[in-house]
Amino acid sequence: MLDTATITHQLEQHRQEFPGINNKLYFNFGGQGPLPRASLEAIIDAHKYLQHHGPFSTKVNAWVQQKTEFLRQNIATELGVIPETITITENVTVSCNIALWGIPWQNGDRILLTDCEHPGIIATVQEIAKRFDLTISTCPIQDTLNDGDPVNVIAQALQNNTRVLVLSHVLWNTGQVLPLAEIVQLCHKNNVYVLVDAAQSVGCLPLDLSQLQADFYAFTGHKWWCGPAGVGGLYIRPEVFGELQPTFIGWRGIDVTTDGQPSDWKADGRRFEVATSAYPQYEGLRAAISVHRHWATAEKRYDQICQLSGYLWQLLSEIEGIECLKKTPPQSGLVSFKTNTILPQRLVQELERQGFLLRTIADPACVRACVHYLTMPAEIEQLVVAIRKII
Amino acid sequence: MLDTATITHQLEQHRQEFPGINNKLYFNFGGQGPLPRASLEAIIDAHKYLQHHGPFSTKVNAWVQQKTEFLRQNIATELGVIPETITITENVTVSCNIALWGIPWQNGDRILLTDCEHPGIIATVQEIAKRFDLTISTCPIQDTLNDGDPVNVIAQALQNNTRVLVLSHVLWNTGQVLPLAEIVQLCHKNNVYVLVDAAQSVGCLPLDLSQLQADFYAFTGHKWWCGPAGVGGLYIRPEVFGELQPTFIGWRGIDVTTDGQPSDWKADGRRFEVATSAYPQYEGLRAAISVHRHWATAEKRYDQICQLSGYLWQLLSEIEGIECLKKTPPQSGLVSFKTNTILPQRLVQELERQGFLLRTIADPACVRACVHYLTMPAEIEQLVVAIRKII
Repeated sequence: MLDTATITHQLEQHRQEFPGINNKLYFNFGGQGPLPRASLEAIIDAHKYLQHHGPFSTKVNAWVQQKTEFLRQNIATELGVIPETITITENVTVSCNIALWGIPWQNGDRILLTDCEHPGIIATVQEIAKRFDLTISTCPIQDTLNDGDPVNVIAQALQNNTRVLVLSHVLWNTGQVLPLAEIVQLCHKNNVYVLVDAAQSVGCLPLDLSQLQADFYAFTGHKWWCGPAGVGGLYIRPEVFGELQPTFIGWRGIDVTTDGQPSDWKADGRRFEVATSAYPQYEGLRAAISVHRHWATAEKRYDQICQLSGYLWQLLSEIEGIECLKKTPPQSGLVSFKTNTILPQRLVQELERQGFLLRTIADPACVRACVHYLTMPAEIEQLVVAIRKII
Repeated sequence: MLDTATITHQLEQHRQEFPGINNKLYFNFGGQGPLPRASLEAIIDAHKYLQHHGPFSTKVNAWVQQKTEFLRQNIATELGVIPETITITENVTVSCNIALWGIPWQNGDRILLTDCEHPGIIATVQEIAKRFDLTISTCPIQDTLNDGDPVNVIAQALQNNTRVLVLSHVLWNTGQVLPLAEIVQLCHKNNVYVLVDAAQSVGCLPLDLSQLQADFYAFTGHKWWCGPAGVGGLYIRPEVFGELQPTFIGWRGIDVTTDGQPSDWKADGRRFEVATSAYPQYEGLRAAISVHRHWATAEKRYDQICQLSGYLWQLLSEIEGIECLKKTPPQSGLVSFKTNTILPQRLVQELERQGFLLRTIADPACVRACVHYLTMPAEIEQLVVAIRKII
């Protein structure tokens, strides 16, 4: 049973930190998380620091470098790895691109995708296949949400020339959590790299990437971590770091001789960083991670996400005309459901008019509600009442 | 003669808009421009709007798209082109990478660089040459600062297999302004693409890219335009737009079918944009451009930059132990000079200690002072006094 009173009591004050969720009923954390007050303050402070001491000076350059390394350390700690394995990027999609364009492809190599990947990643894979003369396979993972074994599906889809598997840790459409450690083990036995789209897992699942052993783990700060838009990252497993070639290149990734000529790549994750970024946003993400960490451990936050998404899932399951895609309680914050009496678009529009923010998913055609540890049980109940009235 | 009184009078109030230049003596606009008050306000307002109406909602998505297009229009107007030719990127280096990785290279093609390009761009060219089996030539432009003709130097360096010329419009080390229209004409006659690093020209020179006819013009908002770090762009000439292949790819650059599959590239500059960015910074750049435009036309701002950099150049030329690289008045805001009695690093460090922000350049080893239209004649005089005292 959900301990509604305790959760409500604990969250009431903490939620004041997040202005974005106090004037509406927010269920789209998988789209973008609400920025904590402390993050906006850190962003403004960073802008003011830059103007006060620079904007370009030895002091500011050292400060930016220090803050960048501080963010890298904070990210690394959350992911259970050392900072040297982390590249800071603009977003999860850029991170996937760094990995995909950096693999030393050979003609005839095969890329294996699941059938639940984001269109931006599919488009990247298609362009790479065209440029390097590769083939693409897609394996049917979506159907394993309730029955079947994703590891098995992938095992059957692997071929002799498969070089890389591209998959999401948490599927953005159905919310399914894939058994990543097992999948990685299978792939590594077959000499297949694993590139993970972690858009929906970082900030939601407690993570220890050193255990999971995925080769490339691409993530963003602006969804479940509630950081500002424009900061993401890429974890590269140390064992494959040297195999990845830099593609988009700039001064942040290289060493330079005394007469200004590039001499070598940086030895760590900075190798894949390019040039001047929106540094104040780095401070915003650093502050957001800190807010969550002070609230509770990653395990406790994940446990509360599951309790709350389970509560929504249960209440939705009881509504006639609503069918949750998953037949058992969710293992993530994503709750996707079909509507039998109204088009998903119409339901989402009507809910947005009433102050409930959700979104539709194109494949499978459904509505997706996202529940964070920040979500109040009462909000879930209000959403369910609103849906009952509309359909 | 410099009309010191009039310039000072006109600038006094306007400079209050730029907190970054009021507590120091700032001469590094070519590193980063000072953010106007209105830009920081626009950034903060954008963050607040996102939290109030989203952060992820139909309304916010429409607003972000509208603001993005508004920035694109503003940039296009400043550059004398239509918005469809503009791709918004993270910085000038990413823009150069989009162009360089997108050209359909053939084994044996040659890339021609000048000897004054930024190490980040050199490193990109070197990696591309390695991956696509190309050759690189470098032509001696640096020596044409006072004698010789850059068009001639490039003409002599072109070979049958030269595919692309990569050059800066304003050289970041010496401040030389290259005769771009003539160079483009020469290259196009020889079927050579022209990629321009415009880091030091956009926001300084009055520009009409539709006249200049360069194929790719890569720029940033955070230098002479005084926007926030993290927003730049790429102009692609319509006649070559279709020849450029997207490399880093994401949802912003593609159309999607109703069931979520990528179907086509976007038909305009958005094609080369990737995914979620620091959108509030877009508003910051838009506001910065607006501040300059309200102050004066691009022609008048450039004229004032040249008057002021000419003043600095003249006063520096009179100091024994200082040698300006250029023997005639500057045509940009960059004034580079050699120090005969003290190492450039030591001079810059000592000046920074006294509140004057400049920088060193590695090749040729020198000090670079940058003068904006925002610079006060009295600041130039103070800098010269300080340099006289140190050397």
